[in-house]
Amino acid sequence: MKIGIFDSGLGGLGVGLKIMETLPQYDYIYLGDTQRVPYGNRSQETMYRFVCQALDYLFAEECLLVILACNTASAEALRRVQQEYLPAHFPERKVLGVLIPAAEVAVREGKRIGVIATAATVEAAAFPREILKLKPDAFVIQQSAPLLVPLIENDGQEWIEPILARYLVPLATADIDTLILGCTHYVFLKDTIQKAHPTWNIVSQAEIIPERLANYLERHSEIATKLSQGGHRTYLVTDLTPSYQELARDLTGSSVTLSYVEL
Amino acid sequence: MKIGIFDSGLGGLGVGLKIMETLPQYDYIYLGDTQRVPYGNRSQETMYRFVCQALDYLFAEECLLVILACNTASAEALRRVQQEYLPAHFPERKVLGVLIPAAEVAVREGKRIGVIATAATVEAAAFPREILKLKPDAFVIQQSAPLLVPLIENDGQEWIEPILARYLVPLATADIDTLILGCTHYVFLKDTIQKAHPTWNIVSQAEIIPERLANYLERHSEIATKLSQGGHRTYLVTDLTPSYQELARDLTGSSVTLSYVEL
Repeated sequence: MKIGIFDSGLGGLGVGLKIMETLPQYDYIYLGDTQRVPYGNRSQETMYRFVCQALDYLFAEECLLVILACNTASAEALRRVQQEYLPAHFPERKVLGVLIPAAEVAVREGKRIGVIATAATVEAAAFPREILKLKPDAFVIQQSAPLLVPLIENDGQEWIEPILARYLVPLATADIDTLILGCTHYVFLKDTIQKAHPTWNIVSQAEIIPERLANYLERHSEIATKLSQGGHRTYLVTDLTPSYQELARDLTGSSVTLSYVEL
Repeated sequence: MKIGIFDSGLGGLGVGLKIMETLPQYDYIYLGDTQRVPYGNRSQETMYRFVCQALDYLFAEECLLVILACNTASAEALRRVQQEYLPAHFPERKVLGVLIPAAEVAVREGKRIGVIATAATVEAAAFPREILKLKPDAFVIQQSAPLLVPLIENDGQEWIEPILARYLVPLATADIDTLILGCTHYVFLKDTIQKAHPTWNIVSQAEIIPERLANYLERHSEIATKLSQGGHRTYLVTDLTPSYQELARDLTGSSVTLSYVEL
């Protein structure tokens, strides 16, 4: 059986490729919902429905384990997926989010924790909730950065720096020591942010999630032993245009080839 | 029977409210596909499917006539809707786009015509095609402006002016005399552009379409007489969040109340 990686669009490729690099032996399906990207402003109900549709597809394609490589979906839908959808339909399958691992690393590294994320993730307040569960005396400040995904997905390169700088002002003013990149797209911005704020610990899921998954599979041999080891990789999108194909190559610096799939 | 107004999101409200102001006697359904906005980067096939779903709904709700108040959808899907979908399923209903009326006004007013639009509209090249059909010796230059819809929909107010200014540079360099705002969202930018380029004729669909529709109904009494005259207005969206509700009020300056509908 395979490992699925699901994201709203192509931003999850950053985390996805790192997972494949760390655990190259397994078979993977990456699925990006490019037909409905971005998820950042969708309602909780809509997000839950989109995620369930993606899981239906990935499970039918023999994924045993799915990484929800989208923070908005992890914040808005993961709990309900684990409490309602999985027990009712796929009790043997697993869905893992990307949010709690980032919160865990952040509280290990910092006391004053900033989070940048989409509007929906900030509104769901999942990062503060998880951080304060782990470290009740932590200081947490969130900043929604709704323009960053459109900028990354629409070739807005020259505007990213000034707009990002503006988003980071309240966090710098609050004197944070640690910043969570709370949207998988933002892993592509890590170097830019680190250059502007060299003292911050920057928590990037592209660095955390692969290691976490490796660790999870070591602890759960009943899952690991069911995974096929063919090293096959499939990259699927729900809408395919030449510019998505180009973006996938630009974002990953590799020759990823996308295929169309209908959910 | 009613008049339907369909847009990918809330940008079409600009044109929609002007239509209702001009022809207040009819019954209207405005439908915004906020669950899947923006359409600007979707493929032609996907756009066609989205538009047909919206039309299925609006026709079931007794719309006799639907204004496709989205240039991307008009450019990518209207022709196929009129040639395939309508004859096969709803031969008695009408779907009108917003693109040709804008091209007609532009060629009447100018010789050197600029167009700003989404990436998909520019790629479909529907504006140049229609303009050159009407005036084969016209000069046409297109500029895709993929960040404007996200900026308008995500409270990016402070960034609109500099980013817009950058998009307009090639058009100013080409010495255009007329600019088509080739995306219904952009009608909200007319004053900003006019201030920066006072000599340009700016073609805004919010000004053209209502008059065109009035004219169309005068010429087609067989349609006009079937329209009910209750003055009812319904505003529907495929995803409803507090921020969409707020945006609808901000964009229109009126107390529009949105309701959720499943397509």
